[in-house]
Amino acid sequence: MAVVRLAAVALAFALLRVNSPLHTALAFGLLGYAITSHLIPRLGSSFIKVGLKGRDLSKAPPVDFIPELMGVVLAVTYMVLLVLIVPFVFFKYLVSFLAMSNDDELSDLFNTQYRSIENNHMFPHNKLAEFLSGALCLLSTILLGFFDDLFDIRWRHKFFLPAVASLPLLIVYYVDFSVTSVVVPTFITAHPIGETFVEYLTSFFAASNELVTYITNLKFTTLTTDYNVASSSAPKLLDLGIFYYAYMSALSIFAPNSINILAGINGLEVGQSIVLGIIFLINDMCYLLSPSISQAAFDSHMLSAIFIIPFLGVSLGLFQYNFFPARVFVGDTYCYFSGMVFAVVGILGHFSKTLLLFLVPQILNFIYSVPQLFNILPCPRHRLPRYNVKDNLMYPSYGELKEGYKLGTILLSVLAFFRLILVERDQNNRITKFSNLTIINLTLVWLGPMREDILCIIILVGQLLIGVLMIATRHTVGPWLFGYDNLSWGAK
Amino acid sequence: MAVVRLAAVALAFALLRVNSPLHTALAFGLLGYAITSHLIPRLGSSFIKVGLKGRDLSKAPPVDFIPELMGVVLAVTYMVLLVLIVPFVFFKYLVSFLAMSNDDELSDLFNTQYRSIENNHMFPHNKLAEFLSGALCLLSTILLGFFDDLFDIRWRHKFFLPAVASLPLLIVYYVDFSVTSVVVPTFITAHPIGETFVEYLTSFFAASNELVTYITNLKFTTLTTDYNVASSSAPKLLDLGIFYYAYMSALSIFAPNSINILAGINGLEVGQSIVLGIIFLINDMCYLLSPSISQAAFDSHMLSAIFIIPFLGVSLGLFQYNFFPARVFVGDTYCYFSGMVFAVVGILGHFSKTLLLFLVPQILNFIYSVPQLFNILPCPRHRLPRYNVKDNLMYPSYGELKEGYKLGTILLSVLAFFRLILVERDQNNRITKFSNLTIINLTLVWLGPMREDILCIIILVGQLLIGVLMIATRHTVGPWLFGYDNLSWGAK
Repeated sequence: MAVVRLAAVALAFALLRVNSPLHTALAFGLLGYAITSHLIPRLGSSFIKVGLKGRDLSKAPPVDFIPELMGVVLAVTYMVLLVLIVPFVFFKYLVSFLAMSNDDELSDLFNTQYRSIENNHMFPHNKLAEFLSGALCLLSTILLGFFDDLFDIRWRHKFFLPAVASLPLLIVYYVDFSVTSVVVPTFITAHPIGETFVEYLTSFFAASNELVTYITNLKFTTLTTDYNVASSSAPKLLDLGIFYYAYMSALSIFAPNSINILAGINGLEVGQSIVLGIIFLINDMCYLLSPSISQAAFDSHMLSAIFIIPFLGVSLGLFQYNFFPARVFVGDTYCYFSGMVFAVVGILGHFSKTLLLFLVPQILNFIYSVPQLFNILPCPRHRLPRYNVKDNLMYPSYGELKEGYKLGTILLSVLAFFRLILVERDQNNRITKFSNLTIINLTLVWLGPMREDILCIIILVGQLLIGVLMIATRHTVGPWLFGYDNLSWGAK
Repeated sequence: MAVVRLAAVALAFALLRVNSPLHTALAFGLLGYAITSHLIPRLGSSFIKVGLKGRDLSKAPPVDFIPELMGVVLAVTYMVLLVLIVPFVFFKYLVSFLAMSNDDELSDLFNTQYRSIENNHMFPHNKLAEFLSGALCLLSTILLGFFDDLFDIRWRHKFFLPAVASLPLLIVYYVDFSVTSVVVPTFITAHPIGETFVEYLTSFFAASNELVTYITNLKFTTLTTDYNVASSSAPKLLDLGIFYYAYMSALSIFAPNSINILAGINGLEVGQSIVLGIIFLINDMCYLLSPSISQAAFDSHMLSAIFIIPFLGVSLGLFQYNFFPARVFVGDTYCYFSGMVFAVVGILGHFSKTLLLFLVPQILNFIYSVPQLFNILPCPRHRLPRYNVKDNLMYPSYGELKEGYKLGTILLSVLAFFRLILVERDQNNRITKFSNLTIINLTLVWLGPMREDILCIIILVGQLLIGVLMIATRHTVGPWLFGYDNLSWGAK
């Protein structure tokens, strides 16, 4: 362990290059791994001391307390790294800018005038603002998650806080890009009905934008960014205007919560975040390695990579302690935090729609959980699978079906018919119990009882496969649907 | 109470104007006051429930627990306000920018090119970056303070964290201003010895800058900002280069801690922050109301006002619960947070040296405490004054002088001689006890025992008087010393 950490640190310093963001990100990722895997075992005791501890429900007794909320350590480490990486990322500007400022023809300008006006031309303040707004958003999420773990805040109180946290992001987006239009699949516009429908939507969005503009004075205009369109016919755009911002802040609410509800077995929270990170990175690399890539797309995905790589580093550091048998719990803090990392990257990287493709497993889990989340079916406090001490395996956990769930009962029989759920019936064939609606339970329903670590690995592998499939889809079916792809390998 | 809050909210909405930052700041200040004074009494119970509670040592028994760390509520409220205020502050840019983007001759530019390049000319990204870096710095400070309260982090661990937190600030400063020179008082340069001394320093700093440049490739050049110099002779500048950044991050370490050690009686932490805020605001107003003010100075002090006014609002909301008899404690979180607010404002507002004048009471308290802080004299765990149940008054608290404090003993006799301390001696005239070295105790030494609230008020009034005096000094003695003043009322 210690050797690995030392090696990581050494390699990090070997990799540390100014002027090469990817090298720097990789170095910081290694440092992050070394730091978290060094800190977490050492800080555990002090977490337990102040009462941040929990018992693992899926282990054979005697079970003693293990530290809870260790995700905070990871999150703080990540933030420190993110702050420290800034000078490296902007290094060439910092240098070149000052080199210029020493030019003779400039210097007198500097000495006479207030300087920031000049700097605007030299230093990419907008990029720095993006970076800072992202960091700000993440830090607020950490604080929110931490308070939630500590005080468990009421649902209706904490619901909108991520949206507030994402406000700086939206402002930066509004200022720098304000691209609020989505591309309409060609097969829709091809058909007259689809055509008219799209026109109807366009006018609706336009009208609502007019209204908003009238009230707030802010114009939510769309400015088409550079789709390096392969086909001569430009794609049909649908301008969502203000609704696009609503979508983005909804994303900042959904992403953290979707990761938070796909949890309950050792290593799954961290594991799924790592897999997501890998998927993001693969997608970024597709762009960064593309020979004919526009500056805009390159910058976006470089930024994404700079955020993701250190995140992978720190998460791997945590994973080795959180994986079966877990020696630490990560807490909601971690789930919120990692969810927000992906939301931030999606928004700043301008692939907030592609992002949803990568979140498909989380989305499926959410949709599957809806009946219990919105109390169409009774929802027990914990929905994690049931641990059986005798054979040391995990079994689906069940919810009791009480009276007065008419809709729920119908739903259950449908789900049961499609084998999407296990039910127990009494003698007169009324459903009494049903397996809880999480894809963790569903996996157990389909593949039968298994050990906790196997279960976790199966889900993670599944997630990875879906993710890779989605990337492929995005860049094969996507172009066919939309008549263009912003990832051009020169081939097209 | 509720009426006052309602009135505040109503007035806030009445004041809320786009395009007038001061109005907006005032409105947000009122909102802040309403929110904190609404939240704090309601959240107290849940703080106590999770064990964030403490006993007031200076009250007549029976003393029951009151919530601790309520500063966090204030801090979070402030951060939310700070994020929400951004669109208002930048409103005119947001609008005008988009108005421009609709111009015909521009639009095709937009449609063809990646947009952020154009935006750099229109939107003050550097100002937004300043704002965000400030917010980021504050948020990290909250997190640090909170962890410190929770886990009490070791001194050597937490010491440098504020410096990390202030890194984004320094980067923004480096990019936007990089003014690293200080003005040398004329009376020094007048005298030949002073002259040579300054030249020696100049060359020293220049050399060290060369070294840093050689290592890091970063040039720490000075570019003189606009002192609207009244006298024809430009002031002599001393370029501190890299050391100026060291000074600023030292400031971000000192300010929070200096406020943190001037504490121990009800209302003092919040009270001194409010007084500091008022002093800052007076200073800002001097500039903002000045007829012939440079754009640079105006922007700086407007930014300062925008940060300070909401801070005053939320702090007043907390003060009414923290003042004698305290119903809540604020925790180190508050001290760190408020300290960092002033550091941030000082750095972003480019009066990081004037800032020290305003912190004089805290600095005096620090210097006075040094012997105990650095263990030249024994330091008990708590140095707060001793409460006497019989007469309900506060008395100076004493430290025991053990053997082996040679230097300390000498120091004590000197301090005792100047009546800067109370000592108790044994029969052979050896000092056995001494009043703890805080200006709180010193006040009691000089003015005799008094009630807790009177003590707090006296210290606060003293601080306010010193502050006002300092502002006066800054703009009267300052010009005389430095041969110029950046605050020009046209008179000069």
